[in-house]
Amino acid sequence: MEQILELLNNNKITEIRKILDDKNPVDIADYCGELPKEQCLKLFRIFPKDISAEVFSYLSIEKQQEVIEGITDGELTFIINDMFLDDAVDVIEEMPANLVDRILRNSSTSTRQLLNRFLKYPENSAGSVMTVEYIALKNTLTVGEAIEYIKKVGIDSATYDTCYVIDNQRKLIGDISLKSLIFLDDVLYIVDVMDTDNIKTTTTTDQENVAELFRKYDLTSLPVVDNEDRLVGMITIDDIVDVIDQENTEDFHKMAAMAPSDEEYLKESIFSLAKHRIMWLLVLMVSATFTGKIIRRYEDVLQSVVVLAAFIPMLMDTGGNAGSQSSTLIIRGIALGEIGLEDVWKILWREFRVSFVVGLVLAIVNFARIFFFDTTGPMVALVVSISLFITVILAKVVGGVLPVVAKACKLDPAIMASPLITTIVDACALMVYFGFATHLLHIK
Amino acid sequence: MEQILELLNNNKITEIRKILDDKNPVDIADYCGELPKEQCLKLFRIFPKDISAEVFSYLSIEKQQEVIEGITDGELTFIINDMFLDDAVDVIEEMPANLVDRILRNSSTSTRQLLNRFLKYPENSAGSVMTVEYIALKNTLTVGEAIEYIKKVGIDSATYDTCYVIDNQRKLIGDISLKSLIFLDDVLYIVDVMDTDNIKTTTTTDQENVAELFRKYDLTSLPVVDNEDRLVGMITIDDIVDVIDQENTEDFHKMAAMAPSDEEYLKESIFSLAKHRIMWLLVLMVSATFTGKIIRRYEDVLQSVVVLAAFIPMLMDTGGNAGSQSSTLIIRGIALGEIGLEDVWKILWREFRVSFVVGLVLAIVNFARIFFFDTTGPMVALVVSISLFITVILAKVVGGVLPVVAKACKLDPAIMASPLITTIVDACALMVYFGFATHLLHIK
Repeated sequence: MEQILELLNNNKITEIRKILDDKNPVDIADYCGELPKEQCLKLFRIFPKDISAEVFSYLSIEKQQEVIEGITDGELTFIINDMFLDDAVDVIEEMPANLVDRILRNSSTSTRQLLNRFLKYPENSAGSVMTVEYIALKNTLTVGEAIEYIKKVGIDSATYDTCYVIDNQRKLIGDISLKSLIFLDDVLYIVDVMDTDNIKTTTTTDQENVAELFRKYDLTSLPVVDNEDRLVGMITIDDIVDVIDQENTEDFHKMAAMAPSDEEYLKESIFSLAKHRIMWLLVLMVSATFTGKIIRRYEDVLQSVVVLAAFIPMLMDTGGNAGSQSSTLIIRGIALGEIGLEDVWKILWREFRVSFVVGLVLAIVNFARIFFFDTTGPMVALVVSISLFITVILAKVVGGVLPVVAKACKLDPAIMASPLITTIVDACALMVYFGFATHLLHIK
Repeated sequence: MEQILELLNNNKITEIRKILDDKNPVDIADYCGELPKEQCLKLFRIFPKDISAEVFSYLSIEKQQEVIEGITDGELTFIINDMFLDDAVDVIEEMPANLVDRILRNSSTSTRQLLNRFLKYPENSAGSVMTVEYIALKNTLTVGEAIEYIKKVGIDSATYDTCYVIDNQRKLIGDISLKSLIFLDDVLYIVDVMDTDNIKTTTTTDQENVAELFRKYDLTSLPVVDNEDRLVGMITIDDIVDVIDQENTEDFHKMAAMAPSDEEYLKESIFSLAKHRIMWLLVLMVSATFTGKIIRRYEDVLQSVVVLAAFIPMLMDTGGNAGSQSSTLIIRGIALGEIGLEDVWKILWREFRVSFVVGLVLAIVNFARIFFFDTTGPMVALVVSISLFITVILAKVVGGVLPVVAKACKLDPAIMASPLITTIVDACALMVYFGFATHLLHIK
């Protein structure tokens, strides 16, 4: 790539084009990203026309902005019209207002109308991730006519193998693959050979549900219809991969007690990072007051057997870990569609049995450790171990059931994850602990 | 679907076939899964031959086993030969040994050889997720000859739009889409019109890296070559979606301190569930001993100001939450390829600034809460708040840097997540807390 920079400085345009010809647009965009502004612009204007739109769509937002500011209106028009519509929408959503104006002003009327319609779809809806580069065939065509039509509207629209069949009101009535068209007899009518078991979605469906359909039916593309069942777009699987990544990131963030963020870590501002984290930390800090209150109620117990304090962290941490194990499994199961509301009793019973086994092993190991390696005596070891056993069972049952309850209440199960469960489990653990301590150690 | 059961009991086979004709194989498999064994088998044998293999591949493992046990060798041969090879491999990997024998005995020689080769690829390698249903064109063909060849080998092999071009040693030299073949002039040579910027992978590459390639280049399929660069298979994006789900599930499990498991929660045995959870709980429980030791060292401090114990849970929980926020962000960034080893100093500096802001806000709120609503007096409030401030900074810096350090040491960043960080942060928090308490409250 050093070579290109040198050729660039010597204005050897033909040589550069030759080199770029063999490269993937993603790699070219990567390389542009590393160049200083001037060189990047220069390189960008050298590209063969047919790849400039594609390279542009893979640039970072900052670089895209630089390029738009540096090119002529004519070049901008070409790029916007040549980009896939969903990529163009993504660009517009990230640009400052003055550049958005310039982009829209320089788009063809039809592109501008489409862009405006797309910008109105709610965020994370099927409408916002669909593309309009699909092939729609009228139901009156024969196979031969369909192939002629496809050749005419051009190869660019056929980004995916599937062609959709519509009636004269643009209602979706079937689909057929480009491949089968080629292999079929020219004189057949497409309505007689198309597939009719269409899986489809509507513009307002949440992208998470769309991803669910792709998973379930192993789809590579999915038609999108409007309220009147008319075909308006197609969702392709490469965009669904992005959706899946995004939804997973959201769940990771929520389960670590953060407001989810779409931005890359290294690109987000310090203030925004802090803002996303502070709310939950405050809530959890204040809710920990409750735990503090329990300890203060048992201050006299602690005063007489101060060694009890030494086991509080172990009890709380183990309880928290045990609970978040269960909640994570259940939340993930719900996200992948493996667990439903009807499974709540099954989960309760499973978690009870698992936690019984796990709790017993932990309690025995813990008792042995305190008994043999500590100087606190068998009664304290017994109190700690029994409390541990009960805490693990409580933690796992609460951790397993809470996400399903959240789901039933139409709340996000991920929000109910480890942080909230930790607080509940902490409180339970301490009450059990001091309860047993008071009775078994005959305090007071 | 009630209707089918009735038709099934009355042996109305033609009617059933008519109904099934319009249904998606995934939905049919769902329905079979709900039927009792006998009915399921009966229904399965009624299917039009061309969909039975596809429905079979969508059945649950238990149902697949029942079906294999219930059908004749001839039917089994048909299904195995008609399935996509990667699906057949998945089935074999899950079946008990006697059924595997029967499957292999009833496969055609060529299928059996392929199955055996696939079974040898390491788990989670590109070889284990690839398929052999792709189209390879010799480099000597013209476009017209290529289309004729594709029509001859049949539409079944063309599961994806991309055809690969190979030389006479089967080495991959380019690719071309089926679509472009149709639009191009018949007399052109494919070597002159194919794409040569091939992105490819090898059989032994880890599936996580393969998914990375699909993400980066927005691929829908990817050729797989052996050690000598010969084309041996193709990976398709629907399988990559499964890989992404699987890798994410693994990360969720590890971050909640569990040994990752591929099995669905509701299908895993209680013993296996317990086994996956207990190891980490034991490790963390024993490591919490260390935290206990710190508290015991300061037993006399606690004895004289026992109210200090009441703030331990809040300090530890807030520290743990702050740390896992940072570690989650970084681990996720690494998983998505947004953060690399070279970013460690940037992360350190960012986390320091973020934690300074967050810690300050939390400390102030905390001070106010204790000062106004508690009876412990300003000095204790000050000790708790300063400790909280320092704990948050420590937690976030450790949480941010540890995953990158793990990555640098070739360890899994997800393993270093919340549980391990919690233990480190707990210890630090307590030392800071008691340190300040001793000095500011003039104990001893």
